[in-house]
Amino acid sequence: MTNEALEFRSDNCGRAAPEILEALINCNSGNALGYGGDSLTTELHTRMSALFEQSVRVFPIPTGTGANALALAATTTPFSAVYCSPESHINTSECNAAGFFGSGLKVTALSGQFGKLDPSSLQQAIATAGKGQAHKSQPAAINIVQATDLGAVYTCAEVTQLGAVAKNNGLVLHMDGARFANAVAHLGCSPAELTWKAGVDILSFGVTKNGGLLTDAIVVFNDEIANNIGFHLRRAGTIWSKMRFASAQILAYVKDDLWLRLARQSNGAATILANAIAKIEGARIIAPVEANEVFLSMRAAALDQLAERGVLFYRRGPELARLVCRWDTTEQELQQLILLIQQAAEHAKS
Amino acid sequence: MTNEALEFRSDNCGRAAPEILEALINCNSGNALGYGGDSLTTELHTRMSALFEQSVRVFPIPTGTGANALALAATTTPFSAVYCSPESHINTSECNAAGFFGSGLKVTALSGQFGKLDPSSLQQAIATAGKGQAHKSQPAAINIVQATDLGAVYTCAEVTQLGAVAKNNGLVLHMDGARFANAVAHLGCSPAELTWKAGVDILSFGVTKNGGLLTDAIVVFNDEIANNIGFHLRRAGTIWSKMRFASAQILAYVKDDLWLRLARQSNGAATILANAIAKIEGARIIAPVEANEVFLSMRAAALDQLAERGVLFYRRGPELARLVCRWDTTEQELQQLILLIQQAAEHAKS
Amino acid sequence: MTNEALEFRSDNCGRAAPEILEALINCNSGNALGYGGDSLTTELHTRMSALFEQSVRVFPIPTGTGANALALAATTTPFSAVYCSPESHINTSECNAAGFFGSGLKVTALSGQFGKLDPSSLQQAIATAGKGQAHKSQPAAINIVQATDLGAVYTCAEVTQLGAVAKNNGLVLHMDGARFANAVAHLGCSPAELTWKAGVDILSFGVTKNGGLLTDAIVVFNDEIANNIGFHLRRAGTIWSKMRFASAQILAYVKDDLWLRLARQSNGAATILANAIAKIEGARIIAPVEANEVFLSMRAAALDQLAERGVLFYRRGPELARLVCRWDTTEQELQQLILLIQQAAEHAKS
Amino acid sequence: MTNEALEFRSDNCGRAAPEILEALINCNSGNALGYGGDSLTTELHTRMSALFEQSVRVFPIPTGTGANALALAATTTPFSAVYCSPESHINTSECNAAGFFGSGLKVTALSGQFGKLDPSSLQQAIATAGKGQAHKSQPAAINIVQATDLGAVYTCAEVTQLGAVAKNNGLVLHMDGARFANAVAHLGCSPAELTWKAGVDILSFGVTKNGGLLTDAIVVFNDEIANNIGFHLRRAGTIWSKMRFASAQILAYVKDDLWLRLARQSNGAATILANAIAKIEGARIIAPVEANEVFLSMRAAALDQLAERGVLFYRRGPELARLVCRWDTTEQELQQLILLIQQAAEHAKS
Repeated sequence: MTNEALEFRSDNCGRAAPEILEALINCNSGNALGYGGDSLTTELHTRMSALFEQSVRVFPIPTGTGANALALAATTTPFSAVYCSPESHINTSECNAAGFFGSGLKVTALSGQFGKLDPSSLQQAIATAGKGQAHKSQPAAINIVQATDLGAVYTCAEVTQLGAVAKNNGLVLHMDGARFANAVAHLGCSPAELTWKAGVDILSFGVTKNGGLLTDAIVVFNDEIANNIGFHLRRAGTIWSKMRFASAQILAYVKDDLWLRLARQSNGAATILANAIAKIEGARIIAPVEANEVFLSMRAAALDQLAERGVLFYRRGPELARLVCRWDTTEQELQQLILLIQQAAEHAKS
Repeated sequence: MTNEALEFRSDNCGRAAPEILEALINCNSGNALGYGGDSLTTELHTRMSALFEQSVRVFPIPTGTGANALALAATTTPFSAVYCSPESHINTSECNAAGFFGSGLKVTALSGQFGKLDPSSLQQAIATAGKGQAHKSQPAAINIVQATDLGAVYTCAEVTQLGAVAKNNGLVLHMDGARFANAVAHLGCSPAELTWKAGVDILSFGVTKNGGLLTDAIVVFNDEIANNIGFHLRRAGTIWSKMRFASAQILAYVKDDLWLRLARQSNGAATILANAIAKIEGARIIAPVEANEVFLSMRAAALDQLAERGVLFYRRGPELARLVCRWDTTEQELQQLILLIQQAAEHAKS
Repeated sequence: MTNEALEFRSDNCGRAAPEILEALINCNSGNALGYGGDSLTTELHTRMSALFEQSVRVFPIPTGTGANALALAATTTPFSAVYCSPESHINTSECNAAGFFGSGLKVTALSGQFGKLDPSSLQQAIATAGKGQAHKSQPAAINIVQATDLGAVYTCAEVTQLGAVAKNNGLVLHMDGARFANAVAHLGCSPAELTWKAGVDILSFGVTKNGGLLTDAIVVFNDEIANNIGFHLRRAGTIWSKMRFASAQILAYVKDDLWLRLARQSNGAATILANAIAKIEGARIIAPVEANEVFLSMRAAALDQLAERGVLFYRRGPELARLVCRWDTTEQELQQLILLIQQAAEHAKS
Repeated sequence: MTNEALEFRSDNCGRAAPEILEALINCNSGNALGYGGDSLTTELHTRMSALFEQSVRVFPIPTGTGANALALAATTTPFSAVYCSPESHINTSECNAAGFFGSGLKVTALSGQFGKLDPSSLQQAIATAGKGQAHKSQPAAINIVQATDLGAVYTCAEVTQLGAVAKNNGLVLHMDGARFANAVAHLGCSPAELTWKAGVDILSFGVTKNGGLLTDAIVVFNDEIANNIGFHLRRAGTIWSKMRFASAQILAYVKDDLWLRLARQSNGAATILANAIAKIEGARIIAPVEANEVFLSMRAAALDQLAERGVLFYRRGPELARLVCRWDTTEQELQQLILLIQQAAEHAKS
């Protein structure tokens, strides 16, 4: 609603895609049994199973935090350790949700490059964790973020390597796909190739950041895991009674590749931005721009000026800014931002 | 979407009110900071404070179960007892959510009439609970459902009596207002009179069952309680990033008394139904019809026939049916149902 | 320590059996690996397996509350319901421990006679609980107290009936055996007959109330259940590093039938007391005296006088006293008490 | 029990001090009210208040893990972060107990030297943690281990610095004193100087490792914290009914400075060992030997030989051994160990 400021804080500042709002209008006729007993929720399973090329179970859930925490709780014990990147959302930004849903499970961060887990560090950590020793948190699950919290995208081969570590050690592989669409759009692979074919057991399927309103989803590739999830969701107060209005959003989201079109728009905006920055002296991109996030390093004074001139962004350090493009970021916004970055770089030089 | 069946299972089978959907369309312009940093959420606080005639804090939350469990968790300790009616939603239908959010708190049911708590039984239970004894769950909160799970409505005086018990014993009074609108519409009192003026500290403010889509809210009348709720909500994964789409629903819901108009429709339908049933031999209403629920007692054979002829309802016993009217229950549906009840009564006589 | 007062509050007010203290002295030589890696703990498994006539797993644990809560947590999910008697220790006296260990599981009380569960009420409750419905706490375990909290003892046949209900419905049967020795001594049956042969899966094996000091134990009859218990115990901080001093207590407790001899003493004292009371006009035993507890009903004035004259006991109502005999209650104490009861009855008559 | 092997795995492999066993015998006369209502537990408060030079509250508890987890749970919220060293016991060896007792609280490790927390890193971590932001675990408590898990001892000045950071930021300072006696004995300061005078709010007071059997204790220097601890302990199943047998142990432990004499013995043994190692070529001490632990670095082949020749110790890396001295480690054991280390060093050279 702000018009003058340039919004680059998060993709969740953006609008809902009109197609998704329209789906809400369209599904508002007649009665429908609550809690997922409606026909749209049934259709959702069929549609998502087609999309993922195998029979999957889909659970709409209000937020990505809920999806992550519940996916981990449903696949671990209270004495478990979950491995993740230090930058991962579950480790930095979910206010102990994993520990809450998981009855005290432990989140264990392992350093890697650009928010990725490294298969050999992971294997090493699991091997020395003390499996079977009662004193030790027991290795149970691996959490990877796709695209990562530093804007990079795991290739299918990289996920497959981590999937192999998971399987060899009896762990579950969970993918936090808050920006799953951005990753698929970037790689040009199929959703199946990036998930269950690579060893992913359970996926937080992001919708909100990429044009949705009020729902994300958990997608489960393993029936044994799925059977108890309904109880976990219910006791967490995350099953809507008027579920049709959530299912309708997700159906519209995947219809006619809308999700990939929207993701290509935000990815494309980030690429334009990154390419422009690459040419600016005094500005530097410090992480791969493979999705819709740009990590920009500039002198503190330059970032200060950017902020003063109305660019909205989060600072990740005195000389580090995160800039996020939305599906609805305009060409004009990009050009204004690039100009302001040039001026800020110029200013900080002097 | 079913057309032929007569839907009386729940008010959550109904549609969203068009005014609320329209509000979603209207708020979808421009950017808005996430997690409640948007201007509509700010407006929501102002609007609700006006409605409740004091400064209140409002927290949109996806479901009533989440609202109830979180309200109790935020006002108790893990060694607490929460008193409620045996029929209360937290006791019968929320899959241990109160124990989950409340880190193991105990739900203690006390019998009363028509789903109401009785002030003297409550006082007695608190007095003999062993306050201060480490072996005993410590009395901490009272949960009342308004309208009750048996279709009755507490008067302001009744709530005031329970509020006094709460205050005298240092307990918190929580009102599960999944059907708060129905209660206010029935009583014709102000929202303030039925809540904080009567001693209610925290309210689950129902929206979904009465024309909303995907949000309810917690309303807090006590700043001390409110301060920590954000953390509780966040770790429970219940704060939407695109909060404007939740706040917009609630704003539309209370605008121009929409919420009361919708509640009067469902209440009115229930009254028509109850009055008609009263004239049918072999059919009996066994609980007050003060909101939108009708508890109908008939011979098992009569209820069997009702179900066979396409009436959708939940059976609460072999000879007991719950019939719920929606804001969009039509006159025609009511007349069809009444006819079918007459026929079923006739049939069961023979 | 108190010499003049007559102590009938609880069997936990009594001394430790000298044989058990002696065992502590005897095991205090040389080194021993911590956390159960010592030879006495190994011997404990052998000895208890002999006692129970099958290979059992034994886990010493500081308290009966810990034993109960952990036994239930290890055999249920967080969305479970555990059935018990309203008078059961887990329901009345453990400060939400079951909910804490069980991550919010629900304790559901079902009325029965003298603290016993009734097989048909239980079957009915399970059948109508809504198994498989996400709204509902899922039936998972049954807790029976042996001897009961009202001084009665389940026969082997009664346990077998409940075991059948458990097995037919896929539930676990947990026996809270805080006074297991008293029950076995009363029945004259074998420990095996009263437990796994009757369908019990897991037992809280009481030691403290019957001559122990600082340990009770969990005994598991089912390997699948046992495998995870070590982790549950460890995260609950209940595995002693110097475990030999716990194992030594339990070994001494079951050696040469010490446990049964001690239980016969307290049971015998209760019988003497009950027989004497039966002859006193104005005094009435209101529950079976099958273990070491006597529930005495007298006029309030009589109970008041008893208390004034130095009898220590807990009042369970204005006209109801619980009197508990210890393994070391003396003949003299009993005669004094009986005399005081006679006088009190006399007094209250006038 | 083992006679030939040389036991250096842990101080919890040692015997109980005879004085403490004797106290158990002595307290076993007459009756005593359960759950801490006995006179010895009352005396314990008086005695410990004298020892700590202020009125303290003391809660015997079966294990150090329980003490740590409960101390943290009682002083934090479920959305808290607790800061500790990566090597701290709560982080490495307590199987998620802190998360369990703390309803999902987060343990956050900050690197420091020799298992110590560094005040400036700590201040920095707190300052950037996002206090007040709902996404972030909220800084609530600091856990320091005294002596540390790498054998070093914080000076009073060092604790005071951390105490200041705690107070300035509104955090609680918890000291895990599993080896508190060793630290006090090393420093020669008073217990008060090392705790509340330096800013410590709550202390896990270790008894077991230093001659106790089955109890440790929580000591609270702050009444507000203490008031709820009874409920926490009870719901965790950690309050013994026959509490006198725990209180008697602790009373004997602190009587006539027994605890310091025992600690001086194990500290002295470690010093002898360290001094001898310092003269051996090919062997190296890699951490301060200020308590009763020695961290010995040797070639892998040398450590292999030590193990083969019957030295029992834990390996903390291919070339790193931890050797722990007990209060009852003998001069002869030390000389044998030193000889074997010399031989192993010789062997590994060739």
